[in-house]
Amino acid sequence: MHALRERILHDGRNLGRGILKVDSFLNHQVDPLLIDDCGRELASRFRRVGATKVLTAEISGIAPAVTTALHLRVPLVYARRSRPVTMPDQVLLTVAPSHTRGQMVELIVSPEYLLPHDRVLIVDDFLATGQTILGLARLAQAAGAAVVGVGAVIEKSFEGGREALTRLEVPVESLAIVTDMSGGRIVVA
Amino acid sequence: MHALRERILHDGRNLGRGILKVDSFLNHQVDPLLIDDCGRELASRFRRVGATKVLTAEISGIAPAVTTALHLRVPLVYARRSRPVTMPDQVLLTVAPSHTRGQMVELIVSPEYLLPHDRVLIVDDFLATGQTILGLARLAQAAGAAVVGVGAVIEKSFEGGREALTRLEVPVESLAIVTDMSGGRIVVA
Repeated sequence: MHALRERILHDGRNLGRGILKVDSFLNHQVDPLLIDDCGRELASRFRRVGATKVLTAEISGIAPAVTTALHLRVPLVYARRSRPVTMPDQVLLTVAPSHTRGQMVELIVSPEYLLPHDRVLIVDDFLATGQTILGLARLAQAAGAAVVGVGAVIEKSFEGGREALTRLEVPVESLAIVTDMSGGRIVVA
Repeated sequence: MHALRERILHDGRNLGRGILKVDSFLNHQVDPLLIDDCGRELASRFRRVGATKVLTAEISGIAPAVTTALHLRVPLVYARRSRPVTMPDQVLLTVAPSHTRGQMVELIVSPEYLLPHDRVLIVDDFLATGQTILGLARLAQAAGAAVVGVGAVIEKSFEGGREALTRLEVPVESLAIVTDMSGGRIVVA
């Protein structure tokens, strides 16, 4: 993913406190061709795990999860942060700390769309502390489904997420690894 | 869009009070192949308006807007409902009534990504009362950009959105038109 790496280095902004602003192509404005390439690459890396569903968290996970699901030709489910009126009373719910919001947020999925036979590939925009992804894994497990992999567009390796995910015992793939943001730098491996 | 019509009739649920649940393929679980077809069709219908950007509102507008933007090969911007830490202090903000939430919600776009030369195609999952879309149009206009079209996956024609949008004086396209939900029915034109 040379193009992604170049884009992070060219357009990414280090806002301090580990916050990487990639709003120009991933988190607010989306470059659909780049994100489609990301989805194609994630789909390729997980082709053999037999995923039946992609699971992500609203909001900024949706775009890369859509393109990954498109290339895997399986449905995508995005966990909601609040229960919409269309959701049944009985839901799958967990809480996870939001890195950028500095508070706990709810992750909610309808049990209609995560089933015991599902093999779930979790996809998100960032792998940072891994807490959102672990929350999504809890939702899948609560549904009786199997988590079969974790894919992220950008990993911040200095926040320990990959270590936190080892307990899942599944392959973890990220398309670009930011190894250092100290002193205003953005270093991409 | 025969496949979309069939899917609404087969999987849609009339929850009363005009609420059409399409969570199994559009709003919570996403069928990426169907939504890619929707994006391809919207892109085709608006090929000639010269859009430089697709604009939608989080959350459920993102999936069809991603696929539309992909087929038009232009960036997508999704308006946020709260200001993330990555956004500048000075933003474009408007409020619009949320049909399903029964309250006013904020729509926020960074002025970094809507520019005076932009020609904006607004895409959303639903065209109902049109209030969200009018809010997005106000954001584009506040940026000095031109709105050049409005595309929706599903229109509920009995909620008056199309009439509300006439003031924009742009082409309005929807891929499926639900004309009646009275008495528990779902009638798709």
